[in-house]
Amino acid sequence: MKRTFCLAFDCPDKVGIVTRVSGAFSTHGGWIEEASHHSDEESQRFFSRIVVRADSLPFDYDVLERKLTPLAEELQMNWRLVDSQHKKRVVLMCSKGSHCMTDLLDRWKSGDISCDIACVISNHEDLRGLVEWYGIPFHVVHIDKDDKAKGFAQTEALIDEYRADCIVLARYMQILPQNLCEKYRHKVINIHHSFLPSFIGAKPYHQASRRGVKLIGATCHYVTEDLDEGPIIDQDVVRVSHQQNVDDLVRLGKDVEKTVLARGLRNHLEDRVLVYGNKTVVF
Amino acid sequence: MKRTFCLAFDCPDKVGIVTRVSGAFSTHGGWIEEASHHSDEESQRFFSRIVVRADSLPFDYDVLERKLTPLAEELQMNWRLVDSQHKKRVVLMCSKGSHCMTDLLDRWKSGDISCDIACVISNHEDLRGLVEWYGIPFHVVHIDKDDKAKGFAQTEALIDEYRADCIVLARYMQILPQNLCEKYRHKVINIHHSFLPSFIGAKPYHQASRRGVKLIGATCHYVTEDLDEGPIIDQDVVRVSHQQNVDDLVRLGKDVEKTVLARGLRNHLEDRVLVYGNKTVVF
Amino acid sequence: MKRTFCLAFDCPDKVGIVTRVSGAFSTHGGWIEEASHHSDEESQRFFSRIVVRADSLPFDYDVLERKLTPLAEELQMNWRLVDSQHKKRVVLMCSKGSHCMTDLLDRWKSGDISCDIACVISNHEDLRGLVEWYGIPFHVVHIDKDDKAKGFAQTEALIDEYRADCIVLARYMQILPQNLCEKYRHKVINIHHSFLPSFIGAKPYHQASRRGVKLIGATCHYVTEDLDEGPIIDQDVVRVSHQQNVDDLVRLGKDVEKTVLARGLRNHLEDRVLVYGNKTVVF
Amino acid sequence: MKRTFCLAFDCPDKVGIVTRVSGAFSTHGGWIEEASHHSDEESQRFFSRIVVRADSLPFDYDVLERKLTPLAEELQMNWRLVDSQHKKRVVLMCSKGSHCMTDLLDRWKSGDISCDIACVISNHEDLRGLVEWYGIPFHVVHIDKDDKAKGFAQTEALIDEYRADCIVLARYMQILPQNLCEKYRHKVINIHHSFLPSFIGAKPYHQASRRGVKLIGATCHYVTEDLDEGPIIDQDVVRVSHQQNVDDLVRLGKDVEKTVLARGLRNHLEDRVLVYGNKTVVF
Repeated sequence: MKRTFCLAFDCPDKVGIVTRVSGAFSTHGGWIEEASHHSDEESQRFFSRIVVRADSLPFDYDVLERKLTPLAEELQMNWRLVDSQHKKRVVLMCSKGSHCMTDLLDRWKSGDISCDIACVISNHEDLRGLVEWYGIPFHVVHIDKDDKAKGFAQTEALIDEYRADCIVLARYMQILPQNLCEKYRHKVINIHHSFLPSFIGAKPYHQASRRGVKLIGATCHYVTEDLDEGPIIDQDVVRVSHQQNVDDLVRLGKDVEKTVLARGLRNHLEDRVLVYGNKTVVF
Repeated sequence: MKRTFCLAFDCPDKVGIVTRVSGAFSTHGGWIEEASHHSDEESQRFFSRIVVRADSLPFDYDVLERKLTPLAEELQMNWRLVDSQHKKRVVLMCSKGSHCMTDLLDRWKSGDISCDIACVISNHEDLRGLVEWYGIPFHVVHIDKDDKAKGFAQTEALIDEYRADCIVLARYMQILPQNLCEKYRHKVINIHHSFLPSFIGAKPYHQASRRGVKLIGATCHYVTEDLDEGPIIDQDVVRVSHQQNVDDLVRLGKDVEKTVLARGLRNHLEDRVLVYGNKTVVF
Repeated sequence: MKRTFCLAFDCPDKVGIVTRVSGAFSTHGGWIEEASHHSDEESQRFFSRIVVRADSLPFDYDVLERKLTPLAEELQMNWRLVDSQHKKRVVLMCSKGSHCMTDLLDRWKSGDISCDIACVISNHEDLRGLVEWYGIPFHVVHIDKDDKAKGFAQTEALIDEYRADCIVLARYMQILPQNLCEKYRHKVINIHHSFLPSFIGAKPYHQASRRGVKLIGATCHYVTEDLDEGPIIDQDVVRVSHQQNVDDLVRLGKDVEKTVLARGLRNHLEDRVLVYGNKTVVF
Repeated sequence: MKRTFCLAFDCPDKVGIVTRVSGAFSTHGGWIEEASHHSDEESQRFFSRIVVRADSLPFDYDVLERKLTPLAEELQMNWRLVDSQHKKRVVLMCSKGSHCMTDLLDRWKSGDISCDIACVISNHEDLRGLVEWYGIPFHVVHIDKDDKAKGFAQTEALIDEYRADCIVLARYMQILPQNLCEKYRHKVINIHHSFLPSFIGAKPYHQASRRGVKLIGATCHYVTEDLDEGPIIDQDVVRVSHQQNVDDLVRLGKDVEKTVLARGLRNHLEDRVLVYGNKTVVF
């Protein structure tokens, strides 16, 4: 993979943004590999993601960032410039279920998702062997249901220590405290095992079975202080019928959960996801 | 199409039901074309649908019904025996939108769904030309928002007059009164333009757009006194992204609505749908 | 709908294309509503589609076209500039089956696809009533299997007379002669009732049934001199099982056919489809 | 999971099969948990799968088998009676790619598929660590391209030694010799990385990219002497566009491959798949 710089931004919409921004690259011979733009009528904001080959520019990341700053300020951009050489550091959190974790670790090992996995934090011992086989540190932090604050303080300390760029709740069955959600705003990714906004909260497959739906789903979203209400990154569904009982829904749902989580995470890692309000643009 | 008799029933589950019921046909040489069974663990009920060729039996519908009655009583069946020669009489109800109506009328004319369309009732004139081109009576019944009872009394009178076996709300934008729902229990089919239970009620595509979902859907269900809460017959979804505004969702949703409604109606007309509680078995 | 100009082009890839082209609009205050770009690594070509609001420019179509010409030549563009006020003139061709035709006519009447339908040409009388109800001229041109040239000469004369911008084979069961394919290169859209390249040629559902596939599909593609080999615009599938016989496949396939054809046609009409070699970019 | 006996059979279709067969269970109080039947019009054969609770019968497997034998002979059944206590012994075969293997091993360990994994045979060392972590014997059998017979003789010896009931080619990149295919007829399951019958043979994703298809797929099928021509058990697809190059297709295809293989294998292990000619009934 060639080294690239990725500029992702949103700003108030106006005439000439693309010309100005793409010009900031092409003036210096920058070879744009990928460019996506979106004008949102309702919010009157402009969203963009531009990927440029590092070796096509006569200077490095720092200089590029400096050169883009005045333009970014003029256009009132909410922006980030990402160097593909700087892999994001991901902390994975899990409970007892192995399907998402196994899937993510294999994708990581085979290079299908590009990141560093800093460590795994779980409230159970169950997945230690699997995680350590991949050479990744595994930490058990017990969450005492009568004193959750203590466990979450420890969790936060670990996340900070590992300098996480991104936290993935890979079927971690605890609700993160509000301060953690705010500290890592739009950096905590959860997989909810329903097609949101249907079946918010606990035991969504049981809810789905009771309602008699004909499709079940999973939703990958950023975690916010409102449970299962954060910006949605991706969703998918699978067909079910009267033949499937709750256990079958749980089993079939796993396939959707792991696929949707991996897809959402990949898009996040490649800076394809831009959040505005409670919605996302996914380029 | 060969003439068939279709037995659809549910009853308390116990040993030997299939043997007894299939035996009631095979004893007389009855050729079973299709047979589906389902045991629901939770409710401990048994569901079945058996289709037998009329010409393989040495007697007609009435005799078969009489022969099955003692067994049905013994097994405490909730049952119906349907003669394929008796086409169901369907009353379609619509508003201004043409997509579901056009689709259903074409399927009916080309023989893809087998029923008689008794008439169309609408609260608007818009679709008269289309409907009458197909040779179907078209009645406009105005629903006055300050006196709905009058319009619905007229509606009910029409439905009765046309001896409807089934009423299809093909994007009819009014809520049927409770007494009509009860009178035609499990015979009124609606298409709701969302993936229920998400986005119940008005303007679901606007709700979907605000929530930023990545799939939109439609749900075909039996109408009950609780709006959008009746037993679901079928559902489907289509992928959307930030590129689609509300108008696009409305347009894309139409394809799902008409397909899901047609599929649900077809299953109903073929007596493939058995209702229990708020759920369905669809054979 | 606001009036827009749409520039669609491909050209050899190089640094600065987006800057130059978007600059050609923004210099004059042009408000870009939608912009999509794609670099194809293999062919080293650049593809782009830019939609600009007409009322944001201080001049009209002709002046814009003149102003873009030197840049287009310099960049060696294969380009078109389309005025949304100039609706494309579409000639529909059909045989006896009504599902695609009914679907397209309803979409056209309700404004979901934006074009003029110049006329319908068929080799059978069956759909005359339907088509004429929509106020569209209907021509029957018999194709004699021992002298196809005569029928196709008449077909070509009609297409020319109606000044077609686009020809849609909506389950027209004849193979167009090579000269017509060439004359209307990338302007004739066909729906093939299989998931190409599987089941090329006649009776694809019979082929699918014999092979025992678990999904059947439909393919919307540009017609070229090689039967069912032209550039694919869109495809979709539907799940089937042993329970469906060939008649069921035919019936289920219709839903996919009409949806995929409508989607493909809409993309064509909005100039979202750019062809290169035997492939398409669909923005 | 309660112990069950599963009877799966096909036989010439005639009146009364279901009554006779279900009667053979219900006479002895057998509680039928699941029953599926299918009449194939074309072949005039009847297919059935009946699952009965072991503890509802007053005798064990051997007696049941003996009691069923005369009926099976009378009806000219092609039949098998399977005891859920006898888990099938599966030999997995792989090459270097880990996605299918990781997925299957996790499903096996978490109990989502019920079988014994006897061993893994590969022509490469790459996956030894992963496999052995799960406590499963891993054998490397080199397939010399100039003398494949030697390697395959060794492979066959291993398969025999491990008394395999089922062989799964989990992206094993070699073509099995004809004698092995015949010896384990309808017991060798392969995952082909295309939507068959499209793109038979080598490098299907490259073929798909060249053809410009808009969906790519995977096919799970029984291996026969004709490469990629065996009876299809399951298939699925994923949408792609011009934005995906061959590497992306390979990556996206993995998700479909592993899901379809797991689904097909699960159906095989539960004796839900009945083969007739080159097609399958999957109950």
